[in-house]
Amino acid sequence: MNKRKNVARMKDVAIEAGVSLGTVSKVINGKPVGEEYEKKVNDAIKKLDYHVNSYAQGLKASRTYTVAVILPNTIHPFFGRLANCLNVSLMQRHYRMLLCCTDQNYQLEQEYMDMALQNKVDGIIGLTYNPDLIISDDIPYVTIDRPLGAHIPCVASDNFAGGQLAAEKLHELGCKKLLFMRIGSDLNNEPNKRRAGFENGCIAHGLDYEMKILSDTAGESIDDFIPYLEKHFGKDKADFDGIFCVNDLLACIVVEQLKKLGVKVPEDVQVIGFDGTRNFGYLDYTCSTIVQPVEDIAEMCVELLLQTNMSMKPPLVCLPVKYEEGDTTRPL
Amino acid sequence: MNKRKNVARMKDVAIEAGVSLGTVSKVINGKPVGEEYEKKVNDAIKKLDYHVNSYAQGLKASRTYTVAVILPNTIHPFFGRLANCLNVSLMQRHYRMLLCCTDQNYQLEQEYMDMALQNKVDGIIGLTYNPDLIISDDIPYVTIDRPLGAHIPCVASDNFAGGQLAAEKLHELGCKKLLFMRIGSDLNNEPNKRRAGFENGCIAHGLDYEMKILSDTAGESIDDFIPYLEKHFGKDKADFDGIFCVNDLLACIVVEQLKKLGVKVPEDVQVIGFDGTRNFGYLDYTCSTIVQPVEDIAEMCVELLLQTNMSMKPPLVCLPVKYEEGDTTRPL
Repeated sequence: MNKRKNVARMKDVAIEAGVSLGTVSKVINGKPVGEEYEKKVNDAIKKLDYHVNSYAQGLKASRTYTVAVILPNTIHPFFGRLANCLNVSLMQRHYRMLLCCTDQNYQLEQEYMDMALQNKVDGIIGLTYNPDLIISDDIPYVTIDRPLGAHIPCVASDNFAGGQLAAEKLHELGCKKLLFMRIGSDLNNEPNKRRAGFENGCIAHGLDYEMKILSDTAGESIDDFIPYLEKHFGKDKADFDGIFCVNDLLACIVVEQLKKLGVKVPEDVQVIGFDGTRNFGYLDYTCSTIVQPVEDIAEMCVELLLQTNMSMKPPLVCLPVKYEEGDTTRPL
Repeated sequence: MNKRKNVARMKDVAIEAGVSLGTVSKVINGKPVGEEYEKKVNDAIKKLDYHVNSYAQGLKASRTYTVAVILPNTIHPFFGRLANCLNVSLMQRHYRMLLCCTDQNYQLEQEYMDMALQNKVDGIIGLTYNPDLIISDDIPYVTIDRPLGAHIPCVASDNFAGGQLAAEKLHELGCKKLLFMRIGSDLNNEPNKRRAGFENGCIAHGLDYEMKILSDTAGESIDDFIPYLEKHFGKDKADFDGIFCVNDLLACIVVEQLKKLGVKVPEDVQVIGFDGTRNFGYLDYTCSTIVQPVEDIAEMCVELLLQTNMSMKPPLVCLPVKYEEGDTTRPL
């Protein structure tokens, strides 16, 4: 039954090359390692006739009907909803869901990954931050928001289109001078495309725009936006009349700050966020927002994870977003 | 930020002592082993700070180290936080958590209960609504908020004290005519004590009060509060100057309605909710509120579930709440 016996596995490559699993993982995923290591790994891959796709990502014959879900937390509204939707999608298919909250701790992310492997779950769905995460190719894996290599399906909202849509909406709403605000990690992830999409939308409509981008990996915090806002906004003063914030959380904080500076939202300045956060999870949107299709993301993750047809494992799936009006823009 | 510490397990003791698991078990249970072995095991127990009771009994001999958690959802902020805290408490003890979201569906609650049994998890923690839920006594069970019988430990906030505290705070804040508002099920559950505690607090301080209670089991909805509010509040009119709402969700809806009626909160009317909901899970409280000790509830549930000493399984544990100021009361 087990046809995999003679197929080389990632750890065989590591042993053959005399390097760590992490190094093999980096080479396979095109991340930089020393030239010497790269050669060792590539030689071993050739010698063992190792193919990522020959192995990876097919469900094993003996199922546990258990999937591990690795998320930062279930406290932030987006993650709480995502956990819930993944739970529903898995349970509907009679799969059980092991929840692993990492608090974005790199080490815990790796530990839970390893734990999931040891526990012989059928697959893993992860939203992780560790840039050096080692993913075994012994197990099907689907990543949310962060691409981890061409052989691992990544599911995300269409963040680029979302950024573009935000620019278009602010344009339709009559805004002339736009501002994009973002704080986040410098890591390569899908939500970073919100900026590029927004820029694209501004250019397409010939709109003036400025970017204010802070990096939390560089130690900057949301408070560092305050002097910037004080410089550009005040009573009877607004250098920008439309702001797109990278997420609803930032949008709400910015709206609070603007009110403190005597700026009226949405009368003087209109603000759009991203995520589709609702008060208490079910009530009104916390602000005008680009809504992530969380249910669809969850369904797609589960479908891809349980997919047995390997040619049907696309490296990146971007799902459509929509605009919903909250009380931080004027009625269209 | 990472407070997780590793709890020593019996096998850690065995490894540390360089003996078999059986030997450790004998020493722990006071059975004879060679003096030298006994010393090795006791030294290891001391060094690793190993506690039998952090472990389990009442728990089966062959463990799966898996606990099923049955919750309505992870979208409502209270449940999202509860799921997260239970996850942290379980993972710290090297237990895995199977999440089962029921959407308060009675049938799903029973199905997941049965599924958990079939899957031979080591225990179940549930927050359920089905009044006829059948719970096997083959498995340790801890219930949150709803008492299910004297032999099943129930963990909740001290809801009675919370209601009392709300009355006291409104009194301290200068309110003279108080109102309690609640919508919920008629089922017997711990949160229903908020009303009784509030009433008690009003009587103790000689305060005028009125109760407005709707029942969703009887088909009433939050909208049914509107005519009541319209009757008692308006521009320059407020029959009550302090309102205690059964939860933060209702408090926020009531504040919205009052604003629509031209009533100023907190200038004319002060409002206190219950739960301790924060915007986006981490920011300011959504309103002045009685905060539930969610981390402590989770820890207590897990401790009781894994408790080996059966006489230490109290039928009801009520954990202390506290008051936190939001923007729906005047500064004390």
